[in-house]
Amino acid sequence: MSDKNQDYSVGNLLENVPLVRSDGDEVFETLISKEGVKIERIISNGQSSPPDFWYDQDQEEWVFVLQGSATLEMKNTDDSSRLIDLVAGSYVQIPAHQKHRVAKTDTTQQTIWLALFF
Amino acid sequence: MSDKNQDYSVGNLLENVPLVRSDGDEVFETLISKEGVKIERIISNGQSSPPDFWYDQDQEEWVFVLQGSATLEMKNTDDSSRLIDLVAGSYVQIPAHQKHRVAKTDTTQQTIWLALFF
Repeated sequence: MSDKNQDYSVGNLLENVPLVRSDGDEVFETLISKEGVKIERIISNGQSSPPDFWYDQDQEEWVFVLQGSATLEMKNTDDSSRLIDLVAGSYVQIPAHQKHRVAKTDTTQQTIWLALFF
Repeated sequence: MSDKNQDYSVGNLLENVPLVRSDGDEVFETLISKEGVKIERIISNGQSSPPDFWYDQDQEEWVFVLQGSATLEMKNTDDSSRLIDLVAGSYVQIPAHQKHRVAKTDTTQQTIWLALFF
């Protein structure tokens, strides 16, 4: 995905996309991890979070969909939840400890995410 | 570009793209600025950096092209430079104080960048 040139690295997030199976795991690749900041590319192929599984993260997350589509489920404080549909270009800023799960991802094409944790 | 829902915000980087003129400035919009991290959307319409103008930033930058194309010029330590062509999906990690300039941006469509400073 990237090559290292002098002190800077260059790559393309839409290239060298690994094939993943819908019955396998999503693919997480770390692009940068330093000074409390992490940038990941995530490849989904129809996966979703298990029922009743909720992410509860110590860091704030900013997540962006480059390709494909997905639905996030955000837990409300009263224990209800809200679905957020994401398409190419969509982003969501998720505060630390905002419980969320991936309700679904596109089953007709790979979904490519860029996730930033800080 | 975004709406605020409870504690999280949602938007689409490919929507509500402001029109900019090639004889005007690029448009910089801050999506997040906190805890030493800044995320910007930048819209270019054929602009480039002035001749002999070099960015020299205190923060590391990770920049990504969502749409359009551009060429960055990176200054080498021996004062020569290297051109890096970017298309949709391309990213470059630019260390702090790596001198660089925008040699050109697409003149046939708007270029939409996502820039992360940390």
